Amino acid sequence: MNTSDDLPSPVPALFPARGARERVDDLLTRELANANERIARGSVMPRLDMARFRQELAGFDFERPQSVEQLLAWSVAQLEHGAVHMTHPRYFGLFNPAPVAPSQWADRIVSAFNPQLASSGSSPAPVEIEAHVIRAIARRAGLPADAAGHFTASGSEANYTSLICALTRAEPRFSAEGVRAFSGPVALYTSRECHPAWSKIAHQAGVGRSALRLVATDGNGRMDSHALAGVVARDREQGVVPVLIAATAGTTGGGMIDPLASCAAVARSQGVWYHVDAAWGGAALASERLRGLLAGIELADSLTIDAHKWFATTMGCGMFVLRDAAVLSEAFRVATDFMPSNASSLDPYLTTVQWSRRFLGLRLFLSLAAAGWIGYGAHVERAVEVIAQVKSRLQARGWQAINDSSLAVLCVVPPAETGEIREIVRNLLSSGRAWVARSTFEGREVIRICATHGETTLADVDELVSALHTAG
Amino acid sequence: MNTSDDLPSPVPALFPARGARERVDDLLTRELANANERIARGSVMPRLDMARFRQELAGFDFERPQSVEQLLAWSVAQLEHGAVHMTHPRYFGLFNPAPVAPSQWADRIVSAFNPQLASSGSSPAPVEIEAHVIRAIARRAGLPADAAGHFTASGSEANYTSLICALTRAEPRFSAEGVRAFSGPVALYTSRECHPAWSKIAHQAGVGRSALRLVATDGNGRMDSHALAGVVARDREQGVVPVLIAATAGTTGGGMIDPLASCAAVARSQGVWYHVDAAWGGAALASERLRGLLAGIELADSLTIDAHKWFATTMGCGMFVLRDAAVLSEAFRVATDFMPSNASSLDPYLTTVQWSRRFLGLRLFLSLAAAGWIGYGAHVERAVEVIAQVKSRLQARGWQAINDSSLAVLCVVPPAETGEIREIVRNLLSSGRAWVARSTFEGREVIRICATHGETTLADVDELVSALHTAG
Repeated sequence: MNTSDDLPSPVPALFPARGARERVDDLLTRELANANERIARGSVMPRLDMARFRQELAGFDFERPQSVEQLLAWSVAQLEHGAVHMTHPRYFGLFNPAPVAPSQWADRIVSAFNPQLASSGSSPAPVEIEAHVIRAIARRAGLPADAAGHFTASGSEANYTSLICALTRAEPRFSAEGVRAFSGPVALYTSRECHPAWSKIAHQAGVGRSALRLVATDGNGRMDSHALAGVVARDREQGVVPVLIAATAGTTGGGMIDPLASCAAVARSQGVWYHVDAAWGGAALASERLRGLLAGIELADSLTIDAHKWFATTMGCGMFVLRDAAVLSEAFRVATDFMPSNASSLDPYLTTVQWSRRFLGLRLFLSLAAAGWIGYGAHVERAVEVIAQVKSRLQARGWQAINDSSLAVLCVVPPAETGEIREIVRNLLSSGRAWVARSTFEGREVIRICATHGETTLADVDELVSALHTAG
Repeated sequence: MNTSDDLPSPVPALFPARGARERVDDLLTRELANANERIARGSVMPRLDMARFRQELAGFDFERPQSVEQLLAWSVAQLEHGAVHMTHPRYFGLFNPAPVAPSQWADRIVSAFNPQLASSGSSPAPVEIEAHVIRAIARRAGLPADAAGHFTASGSEANYTSLICALTRAEPRFSAEGVRAFSGPVALYTSRECHPAWSKIAHQAGVGRSALRLVATDGNGRMDSHALAGVVARDREQGVVPVLIAATAGTTGGGMIDPLASCAAVARSQGVWYHVDAAWGGAALASERLRGLLAGIELADSLTIDAHKWFATTMGCGMFVLRDAAVLSEAFRVATDFMPSNASSLDPYLTTVQWSRRFLGLRLFLSLAAAGWIGYGAHVERAVEVIAQVKSRLQARGWQAINDSSLAVLCVVPPAETGEIREIVRNLLSSGRAWVARSTFEGREVIRICATHGETTLADVDELVSALHTAG
């Protein structure tokens, strides 16, 4: 070989030798475990001096290479002090989990191989593993054996996908001509307690935010199916085209489950696509004791279930599951010259919003295989029990429960003599002893408490209750 | 504490003790490094017996917990044998990289802390780190100092975001009323050699696939800006509303760069949003020698640059960069009760398609800080040199180069006496010696060869050339 003709060396900062890589990985294994232990003993809240942080950050001008060991230590420190800790056992927060270990290992494997999940030609085994998990979830939800779907970056993407499917099925010319193909304005229906992302979704899909109907609730956070039927019927009379009804199984605000069967009946009688947003609550399917709460979910045309919520994988790992997969091939088809594809119905680039995509599904595959349905059942039941313990302790101190969820979200208000909710939450968060949200439930201001960490103890519950009391 | 009242134990398969976790992580460090070395010595192509694999996969019914060590070994084996190897130095393929080490470490850190990137209230430090990287990219591209943007799950999401921004800016009533608010059908413009995902994007945004105009190219894979001006003008005459011109900087088929400044001039004269899809080619900004090829990119209203392509982070790590960030707050605004937000312009849930999201930006932050622009410059220059070496060797054997890319994609046809392209590629792939794509360039069937691995050697180049010759 003519060495004068040789290529420059690979960039060592990007492609270090094996020994150097292993040294860093071993360091990270220890450092991340240490940080995790420190977090559990420390403040739930970020304690970073943001002014100093911004100054340090501004210093990164990328003008010259820097030691990766120092960079990693700096990054770990910023994450240890510069974010609300999802991995703290007293994060009683939004649906952000302490991620389960098998999902973190799956992430490592996927990072190392970096398979391209666009096509089954590129990644036959990964594509089939994802499809297998989706089928298992679909069957668990009671959908037919040929139900299918795919992993998504987020629950929002899955909900958005349901709207694209509904529009595509409702009007054959939608694909070519878009929203103008409909005979009138279209509408989609969800409840006042739904996730607010639906508003962005209506904007993004080109139907406009005014297409979103927020149906009245029953006073207990659940969509009123009679009101739903009425709104849909009135819309039709006025030339509006109803395309999608989206019930929620586990609302963000109160953990409530819409009457899934009644909403399904309205959708069926109106010939409208029926979606169930079970982004968080869907994990209750794992529990023999709790899955009955989701009765009616088997009537859905499509489902959103996020593995990165109650299944507690790392973010983001959403799922879109649907009864009749054929519509995906209509909504997301493309023609290309260059893709190594079998053009099979499994090819994600032909059946999903995404193109290049990470191998997301291994996280839930490994976690579900390691724990079994029984393990995940115990995981969700334990969270429900944590919230039951919080509830009884707060009630014993005169607090009032405002929602009546069978899942793991509690909305409370303090006794009359205690301070205002805004102030209680502010004081609690600045104490760093626990994290809860200020929210509203059925229009009433509440403190929202959700069990998200699979290792929260009774001592953590007691600490939360004491901290809430002190904060008042 | 009343122990009869105690909570059940955490599920050990999901939350193992520290010792057990570290044992698995140490095992993975070794096993993934071993697998990586075996891959480089083996076949680029999957060698899995798919019938047997499907049988094994069907056996996972999740009915009872399984040993996680065995599951991890099984998963690594399926990835080692069941996917085209992006990490093989002779994967001369689509824009899927062998991921750089700092991005894999970033993934580990992010998996462990699992911060929620929806809001700056939850994750002040991560949100600012991402914004810092985006600003650095924007400045490198020559955009003004107040340019902004965000990380996306994919390049498709970033391109899609450009269309939503363009629609939102073009018609104030688009947000509320959707596509019907426009006075006529809308249109978006890209070239015949653009990425085919634009067709899905037009469908998803509700404007319809017929809104997509594939403008003629100049015979060398670049959009013909005169043809573009003509198509836009004719559309306007006919009552069509032009909303977006999307040039490509580094086409998938041929690595070609549209005439960015001329396309910008058309967009400006027509008052149309100007987007540059530099998903792959944008990394050339790192190189002092190559960045001039992207002249005109500084005129864009918005850019797509994927960190998971030529910057070689793990998938998926896209970026959307834009000149005037205000439109994001109009397109993606929402009102919520429960979000811990500063409602700052940095809050991703108020300014992006996504809601719950992984901390993506740490991958590029760490890699760019470790290598510096200079390291990434060397990385992209090396890839260009790899392709120059392939080209000169194939030309010496009578092959003909069909494209004239200054980047790292080569389209070739074999000498007349050699076999058909379809057969050559099929034979090459079944040999497992290298991976190339069969594609088309300017309507002509070609073999497409792209340097994607930062450690490809001259010996790999020789092996590719010999393998292609043998396959003919």
